[in-house]
Formats: sequence, C-alpha cells, structure tokens
Amino acid sequence: MPPLGRAPAVILSSPQMGENIGAAARAMANFGLSEMRLIAPKTEWPNERAKVLASGAGGILEAATVYPDPPSALADFGLVLATTARGRDVLRDILTPAEGAARLRAAAAQGIRTAVLFGGERAGLTNDEMSLAEAAITIPTAGFSSLNLGQAVLLIGYEWLKAADATPATRTRRTTAKPASRAELLGLFEHLEQELDAAQFLFPPEKKQTMVRNMRAMILRFQLNDQEVRTIRGMIVALVKNKFRGKP
Amino acid sequence: MPPLGRAPAVILSSPQMGENIGAAARAMANFGLSEMRLIAPKTEWPNERAKVLASGAGGILEAATVYPDPPSALADFGLVLATTARGRDVLRDILTPAEGAARLRAAAAQGIRTAVLFGGERAGLTNDEMSLAEAAITIPTAGFSSLNLGQAVLLIGYEWLKAADATPATRTRRTTAKPASRAELLGLFEHLEQELDAAQFLFPPEKKQTMVRNMRAMILRFQLNDQEVRTIRGMIVALVKNKFRGKP
Repeated sequence: MPPLGRAPAVILSSPQMGENIGAAARAMANFGLSEMRLIAPKTEWPNERAKVLASGAGGILEAATVYPDPPSALADFGLVLATTARGRDVLRDILTPAEGAARLRAAAAQGIRTAVLFGGERAGLTNDEMSLAEAAITIPTAGFSSLNLGQAVLLIGYEWLKAADATPATRTRRTTAKPASRAELLGLFEHLEQELDAAQFLFPPEKKQTMVRNMRAMILRFQLNDQEVRTIRGMIVALVKNKFRGKP
Repeated sequence: MPPLGRAPAVILSSPQMGENIGAAARAMANFGLSEMRLIAPKTEWPNERAKVLASGAGGILEAATVYPDPPSALADFGLVLATTARGRDVLRDILTPAEGAARLRAAAAQGIRTAVLFGGERAGLTNDEMSLAEAAITIPTAGFSSLNLGQAVLLIGYEWLKAADATPATRTRRTTAKPASRAELLGLFEHLEQELDAAQFLFPPEKKQTMVRNMRAMILRFQLNDQEVRTIRGMIVALVKNKFRGKP
C-alpha cells in the first residue's frame, strides 16, 4: 500500500451559517479529514449551531483556525483545489471529484500539503479566490443542482477516502462455507430428480429430459455453497415426508 | 451511450424526522432520482419540516407514496439493494456504493425496476428488512462513522449519476488556444535570453549555458499555449522598457 499522506485541509471562505460549518465538520470526520480553516466567517465564531450539527465531530470545530483573507489561509499549502458549481467560467482545469481526490492523494504521498477551498453559501468562490487554486473541482449533478456546503464537503471527503480505500467492490459474507463441489451438486440433482420423478412432476415422459436439463441449469446458476446444498436436500426430505402426512 | 434506464426508487423505512426526508429528496434531485417511498413513517406525513429541507425538490415529496410494510413497498421491484453501516452481520453480499450503482445501472438498462432501501435514523434496517434485498451497500468511512439519512441518500445518488456520467476527469478550459508551436517557443527563448544577457543576468559567462538550459527546461514544463507565449513576450518588452524608466 502506498503512503497515504496527510489529508487535505478543508477551507471554507466566508461561510454564512453555523449549521453548514457543523455539517462540514461532521462530513469531514466520516472520511478522515480533520483540519478546517475559516476565511472571514460571516457568522459568529465559535458557533453554537455549528456544534450541534457537528454531532460527534466537535473536535474539528474546536481546532479550526480563522484567517482574515484567502492568501493568509492558503499560504502553507503546495496544492489547492477550488470547488465550483458546473458551468462556472473559470480559467482553470475542471476536475471530477475522483480526479481531484487522485491529485490530492498523489501530492500528499509526496509530502505536499493540500487543501480544498469551498465558497460561501450564496455565491461560491470569487474569481479572485479561484485564481489562487491550481485547478477546480466540479461535482457532477443532474439538471437540478442544489448541493449545500455540507453536502459538497461530504462528497469531496468521500472521494478522498475512496481514492485510497481498498474495500473490495463485493464482499461475500458466506465466510465459513465453500462453493459446492461437483459431487455435492450431482448428489442434489439425483436426489431432487428422483423425488420429482416419484411425485410424477417430470411429466409427460417425452419432456422429462428437457425439464431435467432446465432444472440443472437453474440450480447451477444459483452458485450454491456446500451448506446450502445440505439445506436444500433437507428441505426435499421434509417436503417428501409432508406429502404423506395428510394421507391415510 | 448505453440506455440509462429508470433511476432507482429511494425507499425510506420508518423515517423519524421530516428534516431527513426533505434532505433525502434534495439529495435525490441533484442526481436525477425522483421516486420516493416511505414505509410506516414515524413522523406526520405530509411534513412541513421535510418541505423546508427539500429546498427546490418539493415535487419529490408531493409524489412520494406511503406503504404500511416492506413487502408492500417492495412488491414491484426486480432488484432491491439495502443500505447498512459497516460491520453489520448480514447474510448478504456487501457492495461498495460504486458496485451497487453499477448493478442498479445494469439492471435498469435491462428494463428491471430497481430500489434502494434505507433504514430508520436510530437503528437502520432490521434483519427482516435486509432479508428482502438481493445485496447490501455499505458506504466506506474512516473510523468515525456518523452519516445521517440525507447524507447516505446523497452518496448513493451521487454514485448512481456517476456510474453513467461521461464527464472527462479533467476538462481544460483553454478552448480557443492551441499548444505553442516549437517556433513560438524558440522565439520566446531567443527573446528572453537576449534581454537577460543584455541585463547581465546570465553571469558569470562560464555558467551561462547551464542557466539557459535550465530556463528552457522550466519553460517547456509550463506547456504554454500560443496566446501565453505572446503574453509573456509582451511582459518581457514591458519590463525592459520599465528598466530604463527610472534612469536618466
């Protein structure tokens, strides 16, 4: 596994609502980001609403630092990516969140300090603020685009984590079981076909072979494990017994 | 482009807070999802707080339908994925959000109706509810895991959109400019080196060739376009003029 490097700082420029600052902190904590900076917040700071919305991530708010302007807040970073809504006319490369996260990871792995810059709730980043960033990130949306600050931070944080996340796409929970062997499957076929034949299910005789082949194809498609084969054979035994229960 | 198919329905089981239902609707709208179902909501319905939080996505709430139990809510879907927090002991394949979105897309493209099932705020889905889904989706998080319902819907919706999103990873906005030709770059080298030589910057003489080679390497790394070469040559002219301005 490559070195993961330090997570990017989240820099909120002129945030207006404590709720959104708190939601951003909560989003950050979920994905392993911990450094928050505020540029000239337009709400009181520290902020009670922010604390409520941060849920268990109050530590991020307590450690957050406040700066008067973008140059001071950004001074110590080697790579800064700015977030902007789709269609903004910026003289910057526009990256998908995944590509942005990949660039942040690559820089962090080289020991470069990184940051992601988010604009205020109403108008986003100014062109002057954008001009301080190496590139822009735009979150793809459908026609309706109304992501709030906390949601934007959530998605960027998610992509940051995902960029180094080794979780397999599919985790199968049948840990103690192993795929049924061919012998176990053939045993099931024989058992089932014998009982169905006895129950006159495989009728008329000229269709029997086709029906059997179709059943086998279906069962093979199930990708049964050894335990499941035993369970199904137990079901067959139980059903056969039950058949006679109601009879004299 | 392959057929996109119908977007999955978002099914909220026993949601407790109108705010979260509204946030889920807003998240859905951003990523092109429109069908919401509620199973036995634990809050009044319709819900005023939900409307406020839905922002521009009130239409999704108005069209939402309410069901008494999971079997009735899920009856008409061919593929149902259930969301669960990491580590839940479920007898299901556990998918990443991206893998889940890929399976939803693949099913929808075949005309299969799909749904994603989200549990209530406090306890998530019950094991009985989980047993009605083909597989589970778990959103990867860092150690701190505290995603709320709206955030979970946001991330699943994002992956749904992303699974068919053709946005290039990097979009370069220098659309009218083309990469500088070798002749333009050589013109810049010559111009800059001549002026620096005149200004006695390339000193001492025995280091001149090394300095020139280093400058050229730096400028080539910039990947300038034709317009930028002209701008920089204009800067050089201006700076040279300026040099003499303060002198007699």
